[in-house]
Amino acid sequence: MSSTESAIVYARSHRDAFIDQFKEILAIPSVSTLSEHTPDMARMAQWLADELRRLGMTRVEIMPTARHPIVYGEWLGAPGRPTVLIYGHYDVQPVDPIDEWESGPFDGEIRGDYIYARGASDMKGQIFAQLKAMECLVQAGDLPVNIRYLIEGEEEIGSPSLDGFIDGHTELLKCDFVLNCDSGIYAKNTPGIMYSLRGLAYFELEVRGPEKDLHSGLFGGAIHNPAQALCDLIAGMHDADGRVTLPGFYDAVRPLSEEEREELAKLPTTDEDWRKMAGAPALWGESGYSAMERIGARPTLEVNGIWGGFTGEGSKTVLPAVATAKISMRLVADQDPSAICAQLKAHLAEHAPDSVRWEVREMLHGPGSTMNRNSPQMAAAVKALKMVFGEEPLFKREGGSVPVVGLMQDRLGAETVMLGFALPDDGIHGPNERQYVPNIFRGIETYVHFLMGL
Amino acid sequence: MSSTESAIVYARSHRDAFIDQFKEILAIPSVSTLSEHTPDMARMAQWLADELRRLGMTRVEIMPTARHPIVYGEWLGAPGRPTVLIYGHYDVQPVDPIDEWESGPFDGEIRGDYIYARGASDMKGQIFAQLKAMECLVQAGDLPVNIRYLIEGEEEIGSPSLDGFIDGHTELLKCDFVLNCDSGIYAKNTPGIMYSLRGLAYFELEVRGPEKDLHSGLFGGAIHNPAQALCDLIAGMHDADGRVTLPGFYDAVRPLSEEEREELAKLPTTDEDWRKMAGAPALWGESGYSAMERIGARPTLEVNGIWGGFTGEGSKTVLPAVATAKISMRLVADQDPSAICAQLKAHLAEHAPDSVRWEVREMLHGPGSTMNRNSPQMAAAVKALKMVFGEEPLFKREGGSVPVVGLMQDRLGAETVMLGFALPDDGIHGPNERQYVPNIFRGIETYVHFLMGL
Repeated sequence: MSSTESAIVYARSHRDAFIDQFKEILAIPSVSTLSEHTPDMARMAQWLADELRRLGMTRVEIMPTARHPIVYGEWLGAPGRPTVLIYGHYDVQPVDPIDEWESGPFDGEIRGDYIYARGASDMKGQIFAQLKAMECLVQAGDLPVNIRYLIEGEEEIGSPSLDGFIDGHTELLKCDFVLNCDSGIYAKNTPGIMYSLRGLAYFELEVRGPEKDLHSGLFGGAIHNPAQALCDLIAGMHDADGRVTLPGFYDAVRPLSEEEREELAKLPTTDEDWRKMAGAPALWGESGYSAMERIGARPTLEVNGIWGGFTGEGSKTVLPAVATAKISMRLVADQDPSAICAQLKAHLAEHAPDSVRWEVREMLHGPGSTMNRNSPQMAAAVKALKMVFGEEPLFKREGGSVPVVGLMQDRLGAETVMLGFALPDDGIHGPNERQYVPNIFRGIETYVHFLMGL
Repeated sequence: MSSTESAIVYARSHRDAFIDQFKEILAIPSVSTLSEHTPDMARMAQWLADELRRLGMTRVEIMPTARHPIVYGEWLGAPGRPTVLIYGHYDVQPVDPIDEWESGPFDGEIRGDYIYARGASDMKGQIFAQLKAMECLVQAGDLPVNIRYLIEGEEEIGSPSLDGFIDGHTELLKCDFVLNCDSGIYAKNTPGIMYSLRGLAYFELEVRGPEKDLHSGLFGGAIHNPAQALCDLIAGMHDADGRVTLPGFYDAVRPLSEEEREELAKLPTTDEDWRKMAGAPALWGESGYSAMERIGARPTLEVNGIWGGFTGEGSKTVLPAVATAKISMRLVADQDPSAICAQLKAHLAEHAPDSVRWEVREMLHGPGSTMNRNSPQMAAAVKALKMVFGEEPLFKREGGSVPVVGLMQDRLGAETVMLGFALPDDGIHGPNERQYVPNIFRGIETYVHFLMGL
């Protein structure tokens, strides 16, 4: 029996134990954005460090940052063989709206073929499958390549420490390429590889009017309502064709080639499939593009949150002093997040009336990126997916943002292969996030074949 | 010494005791819209019933309604003399934003010439001054007129029970006119009488898009964001001239006569005064009207609250499933609140895109009204104010809504005199609501002179 075969046999005979372990990490509420979860973040980092030691990594460290620590591990026992830097994150998004969850967000309840929990798909499920693949390989014999792990705890808050960490540890992170597990496939039985990612620029826009909340009868009609002014400003950020109106917003956008459009049109997900997945009454978006193109290749501007005035039960006739929105843009190559910030401010300076004051707070940002589809690592990933899923993977453009891909390219000169097993309808960032259980096992086998095939 | 003189002497010698009693009722958090304050509402009603008994009312009842009880009291010992129905409300608005209060909202802290508390001005301060005037008159001898009290606990939630209560008790409420204490004057030393009130129509507009919260990267650009759709719809409710765009919104509006415009222009509050009172960077509103006209004589549409998506600390890249706004219109004679509701729905039916679903919930409504400035009761009020303040009161149009005025006219055939002592900058409904203490005492004396002068 080859090492690969032994690893696969081990994987298949340990499925129940793996699911039990998976539930262990799903139970840790490692929400990076909420300070009350800082102790949970530390517990999650400790679990990973212990796991890396169990896998025989010869150096394991929990390395502090300004906020949440980075877990580093290495095994360099295969001289002459490639070194893979495996990237993942152990933090998750907040769980609200909590009352829409059908089971506790940290319970890891299995219903049908899915396991439900915050982080099940994004991305504890992916990094867990990778770690279990490593366990299978270790059990089957020595590892086929050199390994470094970098697992951060700040991805969901925009990786504020990662930049500086990489700059300060370029020797430690030296590698031939990056395996980024924060990724997904196309559909349950349809493997895919992301080769393009959108960037992100995230802001808070605060609009202030009167000094304090006023009675809407005593002042209404003569004082500009900041909630209304905020709505006007947001409404003005798109035109009737669904295009973003910030000055210069599309200037740097790399247009889709005819060839790429044809390729994207061949993907099996139709506009109607997207609509159904979202459960929306109709699609919407920039004129002249399919849903797949809008999500994968076009930039967007989104209101992620808005609040102002009285939001409680009943009625209160208040003219609020302040209204705020969280607004983010998904960017495509070659848009620059800091240029976007300047465009937003220019737009507001031009359109905000003098009857209100406004302030923009930059929350986080990262550029979009496009990966090399013809590298030997990419070939190994294609082969591994084909072996496990029985069909050729589709190359896909991804609407989400993984800024670390651009960062690794920029700072370490390392190309990335995105290989993960999330599904588009996993409900990541929302209530009832889930992971398709059979693909945890297929994921483990794919990682085994991939590392052995390098 | 005449009865009036005795009453005034009593009033002046009991000021400290009155303030202590005032603090007692300010300490009761009678917030009608929040169900957790239901026991406080009952305590407040009990205090009023006890007070009416102390004043020698011969019939006092706490009369239940579907939500908060109405306190009724009567003394009919002056046959042949007019019967005055005194209206007030004992409920107050919620206290949020709580962290903007400089002292506890139910502490009744005195700083300088002001007493600070929720309800100090709207309207515990007014009904309290009226009750104390009655105490002074009772101490000085028999009351000069017949009295009925109707003090409700649902004014701040739109008086849902009042309508039915009045219909069911027309005999009990029989009167020659209504004294409504839920009112204010022009400035500290400038008496005024409101003769025109705006109506109110209050709605919740909910916009729903996808079935659940989505990841803004995975779906953003192809699925309509309901927060953004809500902003578009709200932005479309005003045109560039600050006019409300609902179809037919201005059709029934009674235009201002040239004579009234000239009269309003004589009032001492300038546009700049309004701006300063609000602490806003600039005024705003319907083109072609002064601030005073916009507030007193023109209808408005206001966003009282808005919320949707992620509103916590940090960033969450969510495309929300739902966004909601509380939207109210201040109406002027002769706008009909139910016509306004139909206009809002027509506007939404025309402008809402098919990529979202929407729902309008009616919260509360009441028509605007205009009072007879030439009645004998109005003359008595003018005389009383002149006696206490030393100058002729100004007649003013009020931007707020007191729907009970129209209701009393409609159901009891009774004209209303508005007589109260709130000030435009008391901050009612907002944090740090206050009442100018010297005018509590002037208010007591004015009510004494008014009742004696009928």
